[in-house]
Amino acid sequence: MIQAVLLDAYGTLFDLEEVTRTCNILFPGYGTQVSRRWRRTQLEYTWLRTVMNRYKSFDGLNRDALQRTLGSLDLWYDEDILQTLLETYLRLPPYPEVPQALRLLRPLSLSIVSDGTLDMLQRVVRNARLQRYFHRIFSVDAIRTYKPSPEVYGLAVNQLGITMDDILFVSSNAWDVAGASSFGLTTAWINRHNSVFEKLGVKPDYVAGNLQELVHLLHG
Amino acid sequence: MIQAVLLDAYGTLFDLEEVTRTCNILFPGYGTQVSRRWRRTQLEYTWLRTVMNRYKSFDGLNRDALQRTLGSLDLWYDEDILQTLLETYLRLPPYPEVPQALRLLRPLSLSIVSDGTLDMLQRVVRNARLQRYFHRIFSVDAIRTYKPSPEVYGLAVNQLGITMDDILFVSSNAWDVAGASSFGLTTAWINRHNSVFEKLGVKPDYVAGNLQELVHLLHG
Repeated sequence: MIQAVLLDAYGTLFDLEEVTRTCNILFPGYGTQVSRRWRRTQLEYTWLRTVMNRYKSFDGLNRDALQRTLGSLDLWYDEDILQTLLETYLRLPPYPEVPQALRLLRPLSLSIVSDGTLDMLQRVVRNARLQRYFHRIFSVDAIRTYKPSPEVYGLAVNQLGITMDDILFVSSNAWDVAGASSFGLTTAWINRHNSVFEKLGVKPDYVAGNLQELVHLLHG
Repeated sequence: MIQAVLLDAYGTLFDLEEVTRTCNILFPGYGTQVSRRWRRTQLEYTWLRTVMNRYKSFDGLNRDALQRTLGSLDLWYDEDILQTLLETYLRLPPYPEVPQALRLLRPLSLSIVSDGTLDMLQRVVRNARLQRYFHRIFSVDAIRTYKPSPEVYGLAVNQLGITMDDILFVSSNAWDVAGASSFGLTTAWINRHNSVFEKLGVKPDYVAGNLQELVHLLHG
């Protein structure tokens, strides 16, 4: 019986399209290219730094990824532009179905586990007025390693003090779901864009198009 | 004084454009898209599996990355197509300047350190008729972890039995150079495409446009 739900933040609860919109205002015509490459670089830096054993917290790493992205596209920027773009991460809107889905899931203990720093996560949750739904927010920063390290999923499980079999992990990032499955958690993949799952030797237990669909799946 | 040179293989000695050419024959018009996405997926899987602590050797991982790439682009394929594409990795041509540059570097002890399996590396080196230049070939497979793990660079250094200060590491992959620099080696980045270096907290000691330029830089 599921007693607790662990949710990823960026791309799962919060819509990164907001980043693309801001990129398009600052770099007209390049918004999608900048935001896609920034996101990719950001993720790759979390993995590379973990493999290199050279942790840097997500706020600084995200700035590095943004600077490298703008530099590689030969786009001019100053400190104000960097700040504006980095601050979008603090006021990302939740996907439309998220508040209602969280309300329905609320009888269970809901927590977030994310690559973001605790400060970044608390702010994005508060700005979206979702703080009442979450029992705990876990940041990888506490153990200075990034997803999909088994240690990250282990941190959340240990801190919750609930047996692993009673926890459902939910993410829209296939590699994150793979990490949690590989660690041994029951997992749900929120496949928002009708993608193909990653070939990393593990599969999700549930697949749903959004969080509302997942709630129906669990109740059905 | 540099006594030994450790070289990366794919993209540094061997030209991956050959993969694009084969992709274009099998998937006309999609060659660049398939080969770029395949390479990206392949690298990401090496990093993700290392972080997940779920090693799989490069031949199998490369097949997974290819299948995921073709699946995500909704391209039809069968076992013959997979085989043809995977076998391009065994007969990649060296970049034009490579044989002459290796000849000039030969007074030093030259070795390869790569993510490929030992069998894959021995075959691509033999097919390119470069075997006479290399003292040793180190595959990450011996320690079941991928670049840029410090253990990979450490393996090569330990096996060479040469003090670290006397070894130069050479790669065209900026993240690989960052890994070797972070480990503590002297590094050269072969910047073939006039790119911006990755922002991972370390810098290469040398930058050259190709291997021949690096030889000139070292001799000058």
